[in-house]
This record gives sequence, structure tokens and C-alpha cells, in this order.
Amino acid sequence: MRTHYCGDINETLIDQTVTFCGWVHRRRDHGGVIFLDVRDREGLVQVVFDPDTVDAFNTADSVRSEFVVQITGRVRGRPEGTTNENMKTGMIEVLGKEINVLNKAATPPFPLDGYTDVGEDVRLKYRYMDMRRPEMQEKLRFRSKVTSAARRFLEDNGFLDIETPILTRATPEGARDYLVPSRTHEGSFFALPQSPQLFKQLLMVSGFDRYYQIAKCFRDEDLRADRQPEFTQIDIEASFINEDEIMGMVQGMIKDIFAKELSVDLGDFPRMPFSEAMNKYGSDKPDLRIPMELVDVEEFLQDIDFKVFAAPAKDPKCRVAALKVPGGAELSRKQIDEYTKFVGIYGAKGLAWIKVNEIEKGVEGLQSPIIKFIGDDNTMKIMEKLDAKNGDIVFFGADKTKVVNEALGALRCKLGEDLNMYTKEWAALWVVDFPMFEENDDGSMTALHHPFTAPSCSPEELEKAPLEALSRAYDMVLNGCELGGGSIRIHDEAMQETVFRVLGISEEEQREKFGFLLDALKFGAPPHGGLAFGLDRLIMLLTGATSIREVIAFPKTQSAACVMTQAPGEVSNTQLRDLHIKLREKAKPAE
Amino acid sequence: MRTHYCGDINETLIDQTVTFCGWVHRRRDHGGVIFLDVRDREGLVQVVFDPDTVDAFNTADSVRSEFVVQITGRVRGRPEGTTNENMKTGMIEVLGKEINVLNKAATPPFPLDGYTDVGEDVRLKYRYMDMRRPEMQEKLRFRSKVTSAARRFLEDNGFLDIETPILTRATPEGARDYLVPSRTHEGSFFALPQSPQLFKQLLMVSGFDRYYQIAKCFRDEDLRADRQPEFTQIDIEASFINEDEIMGMVQGMIKDIFAKELSVDLGDFPRMPFSEAMNKYGSDKPDLRIPMELVDVEEFLQDIDFKVFAAPAKDPKCRVAALKVPGGAELSRKQIDEYTKFVGIYGAKGLAWIKVNEIEKGVEGLQSPIIKFIGDDNTMKIMEKLDAKNGDIVFFGADKTKVVNEALGALRCKLGEDLNMYTKEWAALWVVDFPMFEENDDGSMTALHHPFTAPSCSPEELEKAPLEALSRAYDMVLNGCELGGGSIRIHDEAMQETVFRVLGISEEEQREKFGFLLDALKFGAPPHGGLAFGLDRLIMLLTGATSIREVIAFPKTQSAACVMTQAPGEVSNTQLRDLHIKLREKAKPAE
Repeated sequence: MRTHYCGDINETLIDQTVTFCGWVHRRRDHGGVIFLDVRDREGLVQVVFDPDTVDAFNTADSVRSEFVVQITGRVRGRPEGTTNENMKTGMIEVLGKEINVLNKAATPPFPLDGYTDVGEDVRLKYRYMDMRRPEMQEKLRFRSKVTSAARRFLEDNGFLDIETPILTRATPEGARDYLVPSRTHEGSFFALPQSPQLFKQLLMVSGFDRYYQIAKCFRDEDLRADRQPEFTQIDIEASFINEDEIMGMVQGMIKDIFAKELSVDLGDFPRMPFSEAMNKYGSDKPDLRIPMELVDVEEFLQDIDFKVFAAPAKDPKCRVAALKVPGGAELSRKQIDEYTKFVGIYGAKGLAWIKVNEIEKGVEGLQSPIIKFIGDDNTMKIMEKLDAKNGDIVFFGADKTKVVNEALGALRCKLGEDLNMYTKEWAALWVVDFPMFEENDDGSMTALHHPFTAPSCSPEELEKAPLEALSRAYDMVLNGCELGGGSIRIHDEAMQETVFRVLGISEEEQREKFGFLLDALKFGAPPHGGLAFGLDRLIMLLTGATSIREVIAFPKTQSAACVMTQAPGEVSNTQLRDLHIKLREKAKPAE
Repeated sequence: MRTHYCGDINETLIDQTVTFCGWVHRRRDHGGVIFLDVRDREGLVQVVFDPDTVDAFNTADSVRSEFVVQITGRVRGRPEGTTNENMKTGMIEVLGKEINVLNKAATPPFPLDGYTDVGEDVRLKYRYMDMRRPEMQEKLRFRSKVTSAARRFLEDNGFLDIETPILTRATPEGARDYLVPSRTHEGSFFALPQSPQLFKQLLMVSGFDRYYQIAKCFRDEDLRADRQPEFTQIDIEASFINEDEIMGMVQGMIKDIFAKELSVDLGDFPRMPFSEAMNKYGSDKPDLRIPMELVDVEEFLQDIDFKVFAAPAKDPKCRVAALKVPGGAELSRKQIDEYTKFVGIYGAKGLAWIKVNEIEKGVEGLQSPIIKFIGDDNTMKIMEKLDAKNGDIVFFGADKTKVVNEALGALRCKLGEDLNMYTKEWAALWVVDFPMFEENDDGSMTALHHPFTAPSCSPEELEKAPLEALSRAYDMVLNGCELGGGSIRIHDEAMQETVFRVLGISEEEQREKFGFLLDALKFGAPPHGGLAFGLDRLIMLLTGATSIREVIAFPKTQSAACVMTQAPGEVSNTQLRDLHIKLREKAKPAE
């Protein structure tokens, strides 16, 4: 039906006759001739109809925005002064000879180039119109290209694409499952997978050696801006491989994607132990674009009378840290108040500060409500440790270690953004040497990754001092976002049972939930490990989208609904009866 | 952890030291030395340990089947007379120097090379062991390669991989849906998609122009050998394209896969109208490997007294057809009785036959219980029309057209297989010009494909004579199996409404079920069409597997369960309460 895409018609075709199809993007009546901008996936082309071609002219005159047309015409250079350097087809136009209206269009629910005034619900309801916008076309096209590049990289490295089930059993990620009632097994339910974790480990036990899948995963959680009920992950697992090899391999994949799709060389990714990341950046996903670090200052504050600092400075479960912000002395009182509120979100009870005006004058050159509590001498020692310069501001956090890290870590990122401190566009790293477990308030343990992550010590050492054990996990972090994470897995049955024991999972629960994995470990499981990348988030980062919904063709709203198809919807009683379930009566109080 | 895969160690490595990992496939103690066959994904390698290497020898002596080992040794040519030409690594062996047991293995639940005596349930329960078998490894690896080849072909042809939702609304295929109760929308349910049909049409309305997806689809139907609750489809849609273009394109894809993965040139696919397929082969998916055709013989039978033939020969809704089977005269009475039973499955009340012994003797040379009813003259005219030769048998069907087609069509395929009549290994074709509708017994209409298929006539003609209308649908058939099917879709709102009207779908139901599609057709839908291939079935055909379960890593049983993970399983009352549902009480009779 066409010889070219609209966007591909260019100077090389001058004097040739072309046929193309697309949507009327704009129609103008100018000096007795009709100008149509016709749009398809590849771009826009300008078509001119003059009154000589009576039929075509009349048809062109009658079309409206978003009509679907097929046009034949002759390509010619644009008259001098009317070319458009910013447009792929800006050097030419087509003199229209025939125009065929393939479909009419009602007035669009919103103008495609004025969508910003339109609520997201309207855009989602008419998603098929929203996706005509070049921005959406580009994002989804980019997503397709990245997926393809990842696949090709992995396939070229010997990874096999193997599908794992969607209708399965509850998986061990611990979020809420989506359930599917079974018709043939009364009272039983499938769960949609939160990840293919156990299946990919079983594929390693089967000897497939290298597996990947672009896998749909499901979590029935309350949604945030970067969460969706169903999301997509680049899922990878390999056998007979150690941390270095798998990290090197997937780093190669990400570098390859950046090089091919963004022409960006990410360089080698530094590796940072979890403890260093927490100490320096207050986060296990540090944003290394920001040239600021948290610095411990307990040593200067343990012996002062000021309890707010002295108490945490002496408590091993607490931390007192400083964040020096170059240029921050210009922050107004109001701005500082805002940042104080901001760190409050993370549980910080205040935000002490010292402005450095004229450091050469000693404490006289500083401005702060807290120097009198810290003492001149201690203050100057802190300034010295921080290498404070005129124009800096120093913020302090003093609280439980977790609170200080989260508050100052978040403040660091916020200041980095607000003060535009980024030293580069992209900063990737690996965070490694995570603890195996976190201790809960009641003294029980939680796995920091998941219970199949291998520790870097023996089962005996693990059981003796679980909180000291490090795992063989690794997270890839880009610009302060966790892009992906994984680990070397446990392939030894005794080790797996030890981890379950430390986590307080009874033998009965182990059998019930993971019996088939424990069985598989008995029959010759190879050493293996892997990792998973959040594809939606990766695309979001790469395209600079502000919401994950911008990189998904048909996303759900924050209440997990699709306003276009009206899903979820009602179903008939017959359907429910076939599935052996019924609705809980609304009026009835919960049992 | 290794320098080579086991299966990649060959003559080019002689005298080199290699390290490899894998499973102990066989251990033999022979002449004071230990032989281990070590297996990984790429194949087997033979390793020899002699008592000189004390530690390694003792370890090698102690390993058992399916132990996971890491071995370092020197490659050497096998002694003369012990080479194995059938084995990739059969010219060499490795003299083992070090062996490291990476994991032990309990005795496998079944021997990997003796699986045929094992019930499928045991194989599925220990699927991770079953998949260690080279046959399973090969099938799933082949599947991965075919998927990859299809993707690359489509991407190279400008198709974008776009994901469509799994949690969605009931789709229009009409099979039973899998439902997912919504937590956030009380009393509402998502449906898992039976296909991405409407979403891919909307992507065309959005202007993506060329879409593909390897898509998971779900149908809660009773299972047959080639059905699974979840299955995978290569899903394709394109805009501004006609039947010829899309058929040519996907034919190119299938030819490409056959050429690359099987080194088979499928040639050009013939196109056959539905009516010809039914007339000649009694099927809309004819197996063209079998050189036999159904032949109408009503003309000779309308005026005879024998009502069994005469009545259907005169009834336009009936058919009397003959199937000439070369070499079939040798069939025994018992075999003919079996075939009579076989056609009974399709509703045929009998199976008349004539054996051709000595055709040169006229009816004297024929053998049959029915010649006396047909008459000598008519019989010889039929023989002449069929060009019957000595040694043939001719079978007859006389009944409603549907019964004759199904019975003789199936008999043709069965005889083709039983008598090994295949003239070639692969026979692909397109079936086209399907009717738009079938009439049900109550006079209502059913869409032969789906209600979004475009007819090849105008809305007015369609409404006037719906049963005469042909559709713009096309099915790709390979060796008697429907590999894929599709159509040019309706892009015109009025046409879509006409089809819904003919199908007796009320306006209210149209809005309720397909409102968003009808809306989308208003806003400038381009002409578009597409097709979907059943990937599982394609792989099954290509690998010669006898069950679809052989080409799926973790399939469900016939009762839609996974015996390995014990899915579906029980869930807690809390989970059900969160989802606003409860179990229907078993004792209670249906309401």
C-alpha cells in the first residue's frame, strides 16, 4: 500500500513518485493551496495539493486531523526559505497527485501536541491516542530496541531463553501474591510468580548451564510511582560461575546497551562493599554522580555535655555524621527549614548545621546555632576533618544508625539534585558484601536478599554468628537506582537448611514451601548464580521518564486498574461457581 | 571455573590441559583404571584416572552417578580401536589429574537413560532430572533457537516487540477465562488474556505500524494432548498491509526458521481456498504429504434405488464422496472393520468399499458388497472417474457434508500414516477464502475466525447474505496441522457494527465488551491485519515430539496441575479475605 514511510522521504527521492500512508497531523490552507503534514511511525512529511488536481485538492481540503490517508505524489525540494533543518524530511515536500481517505477520525479526545494539560486518567482511557504522540512512540520503540539488544547479547553469550510458568505456586519473595482459583482442583489456587527464582535454579540443576528470560512478574502491593502490579524483568542464571564472572558478564550487557542505544561509554563499574556504601552515602544504592560523602564525627562529640550528640556518639547502635555541602552557605533559613522537614520523613528529629563563611577566622567565621553546644575546639576539629571551605554548609545527623543513614543519605541526593551538583550524566557501580541477615526488633532474622543467597562462610560459621556473615550477593546501581541484583545461590542442601534454620523456618514449612527445591539440591545441584534486572525501571532511567507508566504500553493506575478496558471487571455467578468460590458479602463484618 | 564445556573438548586440544565441570554420567572400573563419562550441556567427555594420581584416583573411585565434578586433565588421543565416531568427543579422552567433587547426588529417582519405563507423573515430579536427558535438553534448546530466529527475523523486518498486559479483561476468544480476584476493587476480577488480539489492534490504531510479541496466552479448558492451560504464541500485527504482503512476510519467517534450524527448504507455499480444501481433503488443514483426494460421485448415484447413497446424493446439504487408496486392496476384512469403527468416531454410519483386483475384467474384477446396489454401469463410471487401478481400494462416504468431510478427511490422514504414503517430509500451504460465518442449528451465526476479521465484501452485501460472505482470513497449515492463522481486521466502525449485528451481539453487549475497540475505530484506525502462531505446536512439529509437554520446561498435567511444585495449592483464609472471596462450601448443592 506504500512505497515509503512518511519519515523516510528525503532529498534522495527528489523527482520520484512515492506512495505513503499515515495520519493527518496538521492541515493548513495557505495561499490557495492545501498543506498536509502526514505522520507515520517514522516521522512527518509535508504534502502540498494545488487546485489543478481537482479531485485530490477537494479531498485534501476535506480531511481533518487524524484522518488516515494514502497519498501518491512527486517529491520536490522545498522552495528556498521554507526548508526546516530540524525535521528529517525538512528539505523536501511532496506535490500530492492522489489522496485516498482510508479512514475518517472523530475529533480526538485531546490534542496530541497539547497533552500536558490533560489528566493522566484521560490519557490512559484513550491510551491508543496517547501513544500516537511522538514521545510515547519513541519510548516504546526504545524499549523494544533495548530488549532486543539485551536478548542478542545474552544469546550470543550462550544463554538459552527458557519460559517458566505463569500459573504456579506462591514464590518466596514475600510480597502479596495474585491468586488464580483452579476450576479442576476445587479449593486450590495458582499464584502468579513474583519472580522465576526457583524455576531458574531448577533449570541449573537440570544442566541448562545458562538461562535467561524476559519474564513477567506479579506483585499485589500498594503501588508507588515506580511500581506496577505486573512488571518485567531480565532474568539471568548461570552455572559453574563465580561472582566475578557473572558480574563481568552482565556489566558487559549493560555497557553494550548503553553503547548501542545511547552512544554512552559507562566505563568499568567500581565495586563497593555494602558497609562502605552505608558509611559514605547512607544508602546501599549510592548515587555517585554527587560529589559529597557522609563523614563520621563521633570522635569529637563523645565527651561533650550536649546529649543530643554525645549520647548517640557513644552508642554503638547509633551514628553521628556530617555532610559537607559545597556552596551550601547560601541556603536561606527557609530552605534549611524545608530540608529539616525533609529529613523528618526519615525519622530525623532535627537537622543541625554550620555555615562556613570565613574559615580563616576560626569559629568566628562560622555561623550556627550549635557551636556553643559542641565547643569551639571540637567544632574546628570537625571543620578540619571535613576540610571545610568558605561557602560550605555542614549538616549533622545524630540518631540510630539507620535513621542517620536514611536521613543524610536522602538529603545528600536531594541537595545533589536541588543544587545541580552532578559531576557526570551516568554513574554505575556494584554494591557487594552485603550482610546475610538483618535483625528484627524481636530478635528474629530476615534475609537481606532472599533465603537462597549463598553466604561467603561455612554453615558452621553462619550458624554461630549469623549477623556477621556476608552474602555472595551483588546489586547493580545506576544513578542512585537499583537496576538489578543477584547472588551466587546455595547449591548445598546442608547450607540451605542452615539458612532456613537461622531464619526460623520450621522443617515442616521448609518442606511445604520449598520441598521441591530441597529435593533438587539432593540430586547433584551445580554451583550457580544469577541476577535480575527491572526492565521497566531500566527503560525509565534510560529515557528520562518520570513515571514507569510512560514506558509501558498499557499500564495500570495507582489503584491497579486499567481505565481503558475497565479491568478488573465483574464476572458472572456461573463463572464463580465453576471456580468453587463466591464473593464475601460486603455488609458482613470481617470474621 | 572451567576452560571448556565437556562436549567441546576435541582433537584440536590434544596435549593441552583443560578444566571442565559437569555431571558424572557413567563410572566404570576397567583394568585397574577408572573411567568417568562427564556430561554437561554440550555433551560427554571420557576421563581416565590411573592409580598414579593417588588422590584424584581415590576421589574418582568414590564418585557416583550424577555427582557434580570439576576436573583438570590433559587431552590425549584415544588408543586405536577405542575411538567412537558417533560421539563429538569420541576421538579423545582426558587423562585426569585433579578432580573436585562440587556436589554429591543421591541415587536418581529414575535412570536418565531408562526413562521410558517411568510414568510421566514421575518424570514431571522430578522434572529437573528429566530435563537432564539429552532429548529434553535438545528440545528446549531448539525451542530457544527457534524463538530467537523468529524474533530476529521480525525485528529485522521492522517489527517492534511490545508487551501487552497479563492482568486484563476477558478477551473475545470465547473459551473459559482464568480469573484473578482484585484486592483493591472489591468483587472485581482480572482475566488472563486468551490472546493479545484487541491490544495489538489498538497498537495499530496508535501507529506502531508493526508489532510482534512472543506472548503467553491462557485458556481454562479441558486439556488434550496438544493443549496446555498456558501456551505461547508468536503474535504479529501490521498496518497498511494486505493479505498478500502479510502472508509473504510470515511465510518468509517460517521458511527462514526451517532453513536455519533444520536446513530444510520449504519452497513456496501454495494457497488453497477453503472450499477446495474441504472438497478435496475434507479438512481446512489438509495434509498435503498424502497423495489422495476425495472425489464427488453424486452424479452417478442420484437415480439408483439404494437410498443410503441416493438420498444424500440428491440433498444439497449432503455429500457422497469416494476416496481411492492405492495399494489398499490388500487390506484385510479385519482392517476394514477397524477403519469402519474409526470413521464412526466422526459420525459416519458405515464405510462402503470396493476393492479393485482386475479392472480389465470390468465389475467381475472388482470385489465389494455394494456393487449390487449401485449397479454395474454406475460402478464402472465411478471407477473411470477415479482412474482406479488394480490393487486400489475405494472407500465411500454418504451423509451430511460435514460428516462425510470429517470422516473421509480423517480416514485419509489415518491411511496416509498407516500405509506410509507420505510423498515428502514437509508440506506447507495457506488456506484462504474462508466463509465469514457458520450457521448454528438454531439459525444463529458464529464467526468462523473471530468477529474482528474483515470480510471481502461490503457491509451491505454482508448483511444481505452473510453465509455467502468470505473473510480475509488465512491459515498456515503444515503437515495437516494449523500452525498459525490470522486475517485482515475490520478498521471501519460501520463494518464492525454490521458484523456484531449479524452475530446477534446486542449494542449493549458490544459497548460492554468491546466499547474501547469501537471507540478506537472512531479515531482514525488504519487498515491492518496480522496473525498468530502457536509456538508450542510449532516446536512440537519441528522436533517430532509426541506431546506438547515435551517442548515445555515446566508443563501442567492433563488436570492442569504441576506435580513438581504442587500447584495449584491451598491458600490461607486471610489471603481469601483480602481478595473479598470465600470458598463455596462443598456440601452445599449448587444454587
